[in-house]
Amino acid sequence: MYVVILAGGSGTRFWPLSRKTRPKQLISVLDGPTMLQRTVERILPLQPKRVLVVTNRLQAAETEQQLARYRSLVPVDVIAEPVGRNTAPAVGLAAAIIAAHDPEGIMAVLPADHYIRDDQGLCRVLANAAQTARNGWLVTLGIVPTAPETGYGYLEADTSLRGDGPFPVSRFVEKPDHATALSYLESGRFFWNSGMFVWRADTILAEIGRHMPELAERLDTLDFSGDVWELSDLDGQIAGIYGAIGGQSIDYGVMERSDRVQMWPADIGWSDLGSWSALPEVLEMDDNGAVAVNSLAHLAIDSSGCIVSGNGGVVATIGVDNLVVVSTGDAVLVCPRERAQEVRQVVEELERRKMTQYL
Amino acid sequence: MYVVILAGGSGTRFWPLSRKTRPKQLISVLDGPTMLQRTVERILPLQPKRVLVVTNRLQAAETEQQLARYRSLVPVDVIAEPVGRNTAPAVGLAAAIIAAHDPEGIMAVLPADHYIRDDQGLCRVLANAAQTARNGWLVTLGIVPTAPETGYGYLEADTSLRGDGPFPVSRFVEKPDHATALSYLESGRFFWNSGMFVWRADTILAEIGRHMPELAERLDTLDFSGDVWELSDLDGQIAGIYGAIGGQSIDYGVMERSDRVQMWPADIGWSDLGSWSALPEVLEMDDNGAVAVNSLAHLAIDSSGCIVSGNGGVVATIGVDNLVVVSTGDAVLVCPRERAQEVRQVVEELERRKMTQYL
Repeated sequence: MYVVILAGGSGTRFWPLSRKTRPKQLISVLDGPTMLQRTVERILPLQPKRVLVVTNRLQAAETEQQLARYRSLVPVDVIAEPVGRNTAPAVGLAAAIIAAHDPEGIMAVLPADHYIRDDQGLCRVLANAAQTARNGWLVTLGIVPTAPETGYGYLEADTSLRGDGPFPVSRFVEKPDHATALSYLESGRFFWNSGMFVWRADTILAEIGRHMPELAERLDTLDFSGDVWELSDLDGQIAGIYGAIGGQSIDYGVMERSDRVQMWPADIGWSDLGSWSALPEVLEMDDNGAVAVNSLAHLAIDSSGCIVSGNGGVVATIGVDNLVVVSTGDAVLVCPRERAQEVRQVVEELERRKMTQYL
Repeated sequence: MYVVILAGGSGTRFWPLSRKTRPKQLISVLDGPTMLQRTVERILPLQPKRVLVVTNRLQAAETEQQLARYRSLVPVDVIAEPVGRNTAPAVGLAAAIIAAHDPEGIMAVLPADHYIRDDQGLCRVLANAAQTARNGWLVTLGIVPTAPETGYGYLEADTSLRGDGPFPVSRFVEKPDHATALSYLESGRFFWNSGMFVWRADTILAEIGRHMPELAERLDTLDFSGDVWELSDLDGQIAGIYGAIGGQSIDYGVMERSDRVQMWPADIGWSDLGSWSALPEVLEMDDNGAVAVNSLAHLAIDSSGCIVSGNGGVVATIGVDNLVVVSTGDAVLVCPRERAQEVRQVVEELERRKMTQYL
């Protein structure tokens, strides 16, 4: 199996810890290894033939550095896009590179910035999905929902036929309202759209050819003479492709249109960690109902439910409840947990003021 | 005039900005120069003969360093106490040193960590007080109250006799409750006890002899042969004195007992800056009713009334009101404005946990 890790995100939702050159996948949101490093470590037991990490030029150097430690365990290729064009071009490029060497090679596509509690469970699901993919299916991993989440897209699957999977996908739905999410949860037929996929390189290229002919045409121009893996060797060609194509997600561009989609359900303690407020979903709370990361200590005096990240030092809260408190030394964020998403307004304001060193 | 600056405080109320080795007087609570430096700069127009700064051994080096810039303008002596014994021994020592050179020298005693808006006003009051002190009075500066403060001690003065002052002091009162403070404010006869004094060296020594005979006896043992000013030259003798005496304030030890006290009223925009919550009293608020110090910028999204201090960087608040947010890079404090005094609980907890680098 080849593992393709999509690591080109530039989200701002973990500001001030995440910055333009150190977005979520390159930081240690939960102490210890970065999200990207955790993603790699998670799939090492599968003994992948190669790991292809698609990132962008701004983050390429840091990405290379963070991956250096794994090069003795598995070949790692870093592919630096000249500009972000959503997931379809990134997936298409990786598929084209793999297909040039191994047309029927199975590739697993994984986002670099998701949280998964059950690493072994993921590996089991990926192995099952690889079996299905071998027969020419596009396999998507559907997360078994544990709450009526309104922040995720859902897949509806026909779960009546087989036991554990795979299941045919009948439709993709956007983020639902709460009542709808509740009905999805109760139905047993709806799953969270995780953005994790498994397929053969030639299958996805054929489906891109069918549903995204313009992208396919551009990918066909790639000249793989020379045994290149890393896209840096193809910089000129790539720049041409990326200059000419529009951005599109692989979900919208291919998955929602293809009739070759199957879903494997995954009950693996998954979260996309969409903002600071997601931390209590995935971390143990202390006696004060608080979670602390990147802090030596959280001194909570008459405080409860806070989410703190403290630059390796001390965070003291007195008489406040359910606040997010993040310090990175040069920047501090304080907001109620339920408003953590609004941090993008701070980032926009920093852009307006041209305070680029904080972006 | 000699100016004696009492700079031996070790308060914790501005934690995490203030630490044991950098207490309030040695930090820049309000941007720019430190509180100690502002205290020195404030009295330079009076062209004092010497400035004597009484501090303690822990802070002596930093104190010396902060005062270096003024040595070309005025002789500065740093007197390092081996241990803090409240204000009476510090005042007594300074008086003994001055008296050894200039027995009738006028000395002004100023705390190093107070805020004064009207520097020229202070100099005018000190000049008036010096006239009164010349005739053998102990002069205290009484701050004209602007609010029914319950956090200050008060002086009651007989203001009926003279125009602008000085006024005889009829009594000293401890921190009053709100109703009492309100009646004080309305009476026109009560003033805040500022801890600022002016007297002749021989006058205060005589009064110490009368009301604090033990301290006077110890001070009498000082041998000033050799033209010493700085107490470092007398270290052995001083250690002996401080080892033997108890701590006492000059207010309680002398001022409240002496019949030679006069008060000059001072309407000079004074605050003792007792905690973070005092900042809005002395600083301009921005459009959000917030005050920011030591910050490049405060980004207030739907926030009001916050007091922020941000280590020279950015502080972003979203949807929170009337919070204190202080970051020093290695430590963060978040609490409601009205609970800023409870920061001492954080300091106590740090002591319990032996996290000494944050003290």
